[in-house]
Amino acid sequence: MTDRSPLRDLFAPPFATRHIGPADAEQARMLEAVGYESIADLIAVAVPEVIRSQGPLDLPEAAGEAEAIAELRALAGRNQVLTSMIGLGYHDTITPAVIRRNLLENPGWYTAYTPYQPEISQGRLEALLNFQTVISDLAGLDVAGASLLDEATAAAEAMTLARRAGRVKAPVFVVDADALPQTKAVLATRAEPLGIELVEADLAQGLPEGELFGVLVQYPGASGRIADFRDLAARAHERGALVVAAADLLALTLVEAPGSLGADIAIGSSQRFGVPFGFGGPHAAYMAVRDGLQRQMPGRLVGVSQDADGHPAYRLALQTREQHIRREKATSNICTAQVLLAVIAGMYAVYHGPEGLRRIAQRAHRHAALLAAGLREAGVQVVHDEFFDTVLARVPGGAAAVVAAARDRGVNLRLADADHVGVTCDEKTTAGDLTAVWEAFGVTGVVLDDLDTATADALPAGLLRTTGYLTHPVFHSHHSETAMLRYLRRLQDKDIALDRSMIPLGSCTMKLNATTEMEPITWPELAGIHPYAPVDQVGGYLRLIEDLEGWLAEVTGYDAVSLQPNAGSQGEFAGLLAIRAHHRANGEHERDVCLIPSSAHGTNAASAVMAGMRVVVVACDDQGNVDVPDLRAKIDKHRDRLSAIMVTYPSTHGVFEETITEICDQVHEAGGQVYVDGANLNALVGLAKPGSFGADVSHLNLHKTFCIPHGGGGPGVGPVAVRAHLAPYLPGHPLEDSPVGPVAAAPYGSAGILPISWAYVRMMGAEGLKAATEQAILSANYLARRLAPHYPVLYTGREGLVAHECIVDLRQITKDTGVTVDDVAKRLVDYGFHAPTMSFPVAGTLMIEPTESEDLAELDRFCDAMIAIREEIAKVASGAYDKTDNPLRNAPHTADCLVADDWAHPYTRTEAAYPVPALRDAKYWSPVRRIDQAYGDRNLVCSCPPLEAYED
Amino acid sequence: MTDRSPLRDLFAPPFATRHIGPADAEQARMLEAVGYESIADLIAVAVPEVIRSQGPLDLPEAAGEAEAIAELRALAGRNQVLTSMIGLGYHDTITPAVIRRNLLENPGWYTAYTPYQPEISQGRLEALLNFQTVISDLAGLDVAGASLLDEATAAAEAMTLARRAGRVKAPVFVVDADALPQTKAVLATRAEPLGIELVEADLAQGLPEGELFGVLVQYPGASGRIADFRDLAARAHERGALVVAAADLLALTLVEAPGSLGADIAIGSSQRFGVPFGFGGPHAAYMAVRDGLQRQMPGRLVGVSQDADGHPAYRLALQTREQHIRREKATSNICTAQVLLAVIAGMYAVYHGPEGLRRIAQRAHRHAALLAAGLREAGVQVVHDEFFDTVLARVPGGAAAVVAAARDRGVNLRLADADHVGVTCDEKTTAGDLTAVWEAFGVTGVVLDDLDTATADALPAGLLRTTGYLTHPVFHSHHSETAMLRYLRRLQDKDIALDRSMIPLGSCTMKLNATTEMEPITWPELAGIHPYAPVDQVGGYLRLIEDLEGWLAEVTGYDAVSLQPNAGSQGEFAGLLAIRAHHRANGEHERDVCLIPSSAHGTNAASAVMAGMRVVVVACDDQGNVDVPDLRAKIDKHRDRLSAIMVTYPSTHGVFEETITEICDQVHEAGGQVYVDGANLNALVGLAKPGSFGADVSHLNLHKTFCIPHGGGGPGVGPVAVRAHLAPYLPGHPLEDSPVGPVAAAPYGSAGILPISWAYVRMMGAEGLKAATEQAILSANYLARRLAPHYPVLYTGREGLVAHECIVDLRQITKDTGVTVDDVAKRLVDYGFHAPTMSFPVAGTLMIEPTESEDLAELDRFCDAMIAIREEIAKVASGAYDKTDNPLRNAPHTADCLVADDWAHPYTRTEAAYPVPALRDAKYWSPVRRIDQAYGDRNLVCSCPPLEAYED
Repeated sequence: MTDRSPLRDLFAPPFATRHIGPADAEQARMLEAVGYESIADLIAVAVPEVIRSQGPLDLPEAAGEAEAIAELRALAGRNQVLTSMIGLGYHDTITPAVIRRNLLENPGWYTAYTPYQPEISQGRLEALLNFQTVISDLAGLDVAGASLLDEATAAAEAMTLARRAGRVKAPVFVVDADALPQTKAVLATRAEPLGIELVEADLAQGLPEGELFGVLVQYPGASGRIADFRDLAARAHERGALVVAAADLLALTLVEAPGSLGADIAIGSSQRFGVPFGFGGPHAAYMAVRDGLQRQMPGRLVGVSQDADGHPAYRLALQTREQHIRREKATSNICTAQVLLAVIAGMYAVYHGPEGLRRIAQRAHRHAALLAAGLREAGVQVVHDEFFDTVLARVPGGAAAVVAAARDRGVNLRLADADHVGVTCDEKTTAGDLTAVWEAFGVTGVVLDDLDTATADALPAGLLRTTGYLTHPVFHSHHSETAMLRYLRRLQDKDIALDRSMIPLGSCTMKLNATTEMEPITWPELAGIHPYAPVDQVGGYLRLIEDLEGWLAEVTGYDAVSLQPNAGSQGEFAGLLAIRAHHRANGEHERDVCLIPSSAHGTNAASAVMAGMRVVVVACDDQGNVDVPDLRAKIDKHRDRLSAIMVTYPSTHGVFEETITEICDQVHEAGGQVYVDGANLNALVGLAKPGSFGADVSHLNLHKTFCIPHGGGGPGVGPVAVRAHLAPYLPGHPLEDSPVGPVAAAPYGSAGILPISWAYVRMMGAEGLKAATEQAILSANYLARRLAPHYPVLYTGREGLVAHECIVDLRQITKDTGVTVDDVAKRLVDYGFHAPTMSFPVAGTLMIEPTESEDLAELDRFCDAMIAIREEIAKVASGAYDKTDNPLRNAPHTADCLVADDWAHPYTRTEAAYPVPALRDAKYWSPVRRIDQAYGDRNLVCSCPPLEAYED
Repeated sequence: MTDRSPLRDLFAPPFATRHIGPADAEQARMLEAVGYESIADLIAVAVPEVIRSQGPLDLPEAAGEAEAIAELRALAGRNQVLTSMIGLGYHDTITPAVIRRNLLENPGWYTAYTPYQPEISQGRLEALLNFQTVISDLAGLDVAGASLLDEATAAAEAMTLARRAGRVKAPVFVVDADALPQTKAVLATRAEPLGIELVEADLAQGLPEGELFGVLVQYPGASGRIADFRDLAARAHERGALVVAAADLLALTLVEAPGSLGADIAIGSSQRFGVPFGFGGPHAAYMAVRDGLQRQMPGRLVGVSQDADGHPAYRLALQTREQHIRREKATSNICTAQVLLAVIAGMYAVYHGPEGLRRIAQRAHRHAALLAAGLREAGVQVVHDEFFDTVLARVPGGAAAVVAAARDRGVNLRLADADHVGVTCDEKTTAGDLTAVWEAFGVTGVVLDDLDTATADALPAGLLRTTGYLTHPVFHSHHSETAMLRYLRRLQDKDIALDRSMIPLGSCTMKLNATTEMEPITWPELAGIHPYAPVDQVGGYLRLIEDLEGWLAEVTGYDAVSLQPNAGSQGEFAGLLAIRAHHRANGEHERDVCLIPSSAHGTNAASAVMAGMRVVVVACDDQGNVDVPDLRAKIDKHRDRLSAIMVTYPSTHGVFEETITEICDQVHEAGGQVYVDGANLNALVGLAKPGSFGADVSHLNLHKTFCIPHGGGGPGVGPVAVRAHLAPYLPGHPLEDSPVGPVAAAPYGSAGILPISWAYVRMMGAEGLKAATEQAILSANYLARRLAPHYPVLYTGREGLVAHECIVDLRQITKDTGVTVDDVAKRLVDYGFHAPTMSFPVAGTLMIEPTESEDLAELDRFCDAMIAIREEIAKVASGAYDKTDNPLRNAPHTADCLVADDWAHPYTRTEAAYPVPALRDAKYWSPVRRIDQAYGDRNLVCSCPPLEAYED
């Protein structure tokens, strides 16, 4: 029969055709430009045979978008959303719908990159400054950072901050017995390799004897108790120790600020400011410090500076602390934040304002007070007389029964121990919830109105908040939905994210974050689950996690995966802890040397230090490859103490090193373990597996290779994958015993965003994933070929090919013309682009990673911009442009400066604004001119400046 | 007890505080400016006592946002989403997720207004031009419009077009017996009052004898049959009749274009191009015509023109046809479109491209062919040998059983009659669906692969498509998700919608479309329901509809409401049909005079003509109020033939006429009915009820008063509300007999967006709705007071107060300075605003309606802009600005013109770009300069122009 189209030929094109930018015809043109007949030919040359996988990945056949969504709906349906009154640092909250839709569900916000290019990040930097203002105001401390990963790791960062900032030698840190259990667990994990002795003490009884460098109080405590720690702080200070308060932000609207009570550092979670549970994350933790400690803070800090025209402008302050982690000198490996979540929390405060927040807090407190009163009236013992939102009830021997009875009524309580039940109220608590809880305790017949009349508040009189907060106009101007909607749009419009143009950041893999991947994360059945909800209520999540762990193991060639680490840095740390535990289990306690090539990401060394290792640097050759003779020498020298080597593959220079298997063999032969940093996994998926070509452990970046969006600088997810012998040493559950402790507060880290990666793998399948990798490599080589006649391309491998990114060298150009990497990066803004990675891994260069998601038109638009900029540089060289007053040096140009009545530059406005004609149809206008970094660091302002600062 | 906050004082602020812009303190300042102590004092003076309601609205107490969402989830849960194979013009389809999130769920698109101000609407105009190109290409006709309300009303519009464009006198229109039943029903409703004789005929037997002015063929037919109507068309043309083809867009990718077969007009639905069922709508219908008929087309038409700099620019073409409906001369009352849905359909074609669409069509066809083959093989008779996606099976006496058996298997089929079952395949049909259907027919054991090999396609060989389509580059450039995402963002950024700034359009009530109202409409349980799904599957929808009808009846003081009319114009028509039917039921067939004040909306008269009435215009006085003596005279003159009066209240001049009850009494006394146009209901809700102060019928605009967004020019919903004596004459169900026929294709019109209004009423409650109205009146009066020193404010009522909008008069200014209403409107673009309503109801004026949703800061920003513009006008008057070369006349200014190296104007670039300093922080850049309307009408281009047109 001829007049028929067989059904199989008519199936919808796979999702991969939407994810991968270039269509077949475009791919063919690119191959031609690079000089290969087929993609297979290119890959055969580009990727060393020795590491190549045989056969396809063993993954389920790719699902279509509708099919994947249906499967996720089925999984979500296997979760049960009960009312959560578990507390323990996670509280139900209402995400205002206008914020959910226009921020959390808006690619203009979630696809943005970290604001390292501040000129195109003014919107999210302002939003982060709002967050910092919320934190420093509520904490009553001078400087707040732009968020940390979660409350427990923030506590650990505070501990190490206290260690390095303090003057006490004794390595003793005291933690409140009433601290959150996951905080204690993570502190323990972090303390031990650093030789810190962690002492748990009931701080209600005062400070324990002996020297200590720091103490952490939980305010209010996990049991609900609110202690006045003024005295404790005074005594700690007398003994030279620093005081860390782990404080609940909502409580701080009613009780005195930790800073006022004597805390040097405050940390905590901002989750309850509008960020859903998500089965544990992602949420933004916060840290605030008193003046004098800000240069010691981990993570990012947004500050105010000014631009070339003297207008106020935001940017990351004190950048050297973080973007350029100081390798083996580092004391924190934190190099990211939870920007998207911090922005939500900040906007929640903007939307509610101080009065609204106060009312929410009062309501939660009032419900708790009534709950306690109802229990007491019926003869149930309530342990604490004063509390904020959490009531601890004593029911000797009956706690489990009460918790079960509550569950039958749709409410999850906290089983504190066999005799105690914790009940925590929040923004969503209703009178009906109270009734259900009372019933679970066997209390009936409470008349709420009568109780309300008869019951006093239960906040400690001596701790009522007297200091003001959120007085800045931004917290008083956007309280209607219309006003909030426009504020969000206005900020969004200042920024470049993936919804506007390519973000060609080497090492960052800014690929498509597909809508189908993103949609499920805000479904109530996935967003509304407390991390400690009973296991039988989270069947969908557990299955999704099991699937994803299995798929990632298959993709990487490892035997086991933990999804707990909530950033790449934490995955590294977890991987090194596993290696350390492995050696120790073998009785080889002395193995503590970690070899790290000089070209490595700075976090590698920082993580090694955190894991108690000594960093030994291995030289690299001119090509950025590991210098094998030097490696051999270092192995020989440290043979008996060799713990591990950390290498990035393909290398940070974007090259498939041919010697990788040899390196693995040599390290293994010396008794060491091989850590392959998965930062560049996008060049390997479907083609090669680190676990198969010789490595023992890797971390992955789900926010790079597996489509979790960068969120403007977080969230990330950094799973750690290991071979079988290391599997016992993966991170443990925060509330359970395990050989290695947890590295994050929640058992599955940022579980709430795992559906994104699940959907990606599910929809790509083995073929799609491989095709994506192949296209990523082709696209990088296409860029390299187009740019090579104009800029030297560094570090090419066989046949002059690169892997999935390429480095263009500006050093000679800078020398000849004075035009710097910075000038090119800022000039790209005028062309509508985010700059490539600057001066990493080599100063004076730009590293470009196109990813597979960019189509040929966009790749060409970028190349055209780079080539046009090269022509501008040539004009500087020839003298056609002035050496200092030229479009490069003055970039970016704002509309403001271009429309000025006086135009004093020797080049034209048109040359400045429209160097290529296509910009006339779609022009991104930078909101500020080039920002003066140094000015802001000299004049550190890290909360919302008064409005006068914006006056001309 | 003193240290307690009673629980009731701590409840979350009601939604109304988010919906209403000004907070209490702002409201107090506004009251002070207007000169009243309290809002009650203001309202007591502004709103005539005689119409004021006593007591609050009887509505459920306001729900919070979370509570309303929970209730809607519960309602949605009462709908059952089965696989729909019902067909009948509604087909399941996959909305690409990138389009759903970034267009359908994006306020940047859905809150935009109709593109009457083309300079700030270039994004949606381009999107509509894409839609028009899709339609004209697929239909094979020269000109396509920007969409109509639904297929059935589009058929009716085609009928009347054929009537006025043709040369045959006989009022006979022939409709295909195989046309969709709802199309036949709506044609009947529309034909009868116009005296058109509708003849149904089996066109397979050829044209019936006798004169006819037009014929409608369904292509393919409701039964699935695809007839080659070439001969029929030739014969119709010989007899002077016009040929209308109601064609399925997806089928047209495979079968020959109607234009090629001889159709003069093609109409149909674009629903299956990515627009969800929504229980019947909203969907965009289309109409395309051959050259020569375009000036007769109803609805809107986007065309290409050029701007002041000679650059191509889009705008509505031939505007006089529609924005200025020609009152009693009108032949269509259509004055809106389904822009948001047309844009989705257009983007669906952009995303899939011609090859993708063809494949989707082939797949649907292939499934149908296999289904038929499987049935035939098992001995079930299939009626037609050739078909596209629909198979009609003959099962004598067994149809109901088959339909029931399919339903048990999760599939809805069409019960055509007792002996026939219709089965329609679509984009989502799977092999599993075929199996379920076969089983319902008792057919088992089909081996799909074998069947696939053995089965030929079933398209008629003589009708295979030979003509090309979608060759324009736009249909070949955005096939990856990244590319589509950026295209949507780029277009969105060209436009002003409510997410950027106030849209102060008089008579259009551009209020907040809250996210919580919007979120449910894309839930699968609401979006995925076919309009003819069995009643027991749609319990949630029916309850929601019943609620909303009841609430709207309470708000308006009427006894019954029909939600069927899917635009205000259709509500008017339905209301007048009810009046007509009432008179006829009373034997008063001669009552056909409809009194309409000269100040009325143009649609009033057009609707009256459509309802078979004669329009008699009543004069208005200087204040725009009905001239009561003239009214009395007209009533006396037409007493015996008086059918109705149509008045708008408050008047189109924004005044609460004191005489309204007197007018009602007089008309009633003469035996007439009173129609109150609900366009201005936002000034009445909670304060006065038309059904109580004397009217018999009103239509409402849910897209104005009840928060359905304007969608860039549709959808709208125009319910009709009546007193009890008219209730029997509300529009009927399209598939059932009723005294008055349906006015829309679907039983509940655009049911899919009714949750928006439901949520609004549910969350506002009686108090909130009243407070909104009060604020809307206060805001209008505040604007009037601030602007009055600068511009004359027309038509104030008692104490110089206006209702919910105010009119500022530019006529004297124009006379004195040459600065026109247009100049001010376009200059407002430079200030970042959408212009107010221009020259309606009075030429040379601007009508401003702020609504309650704008906060004081935005109202002041607008006033400041208007006042600054007034100062610019003063400079023209004083000669400080040139009479013709000034910032007003040259507005809007593009970045392109401002950054030009030559600036030849006598005013500065700064004056042009930044007339007020706040613009430096957030500037909207118009993508084009002022558009030359006449040029485009002289050179009509209504589909995507070739790229060369954009070259400079």
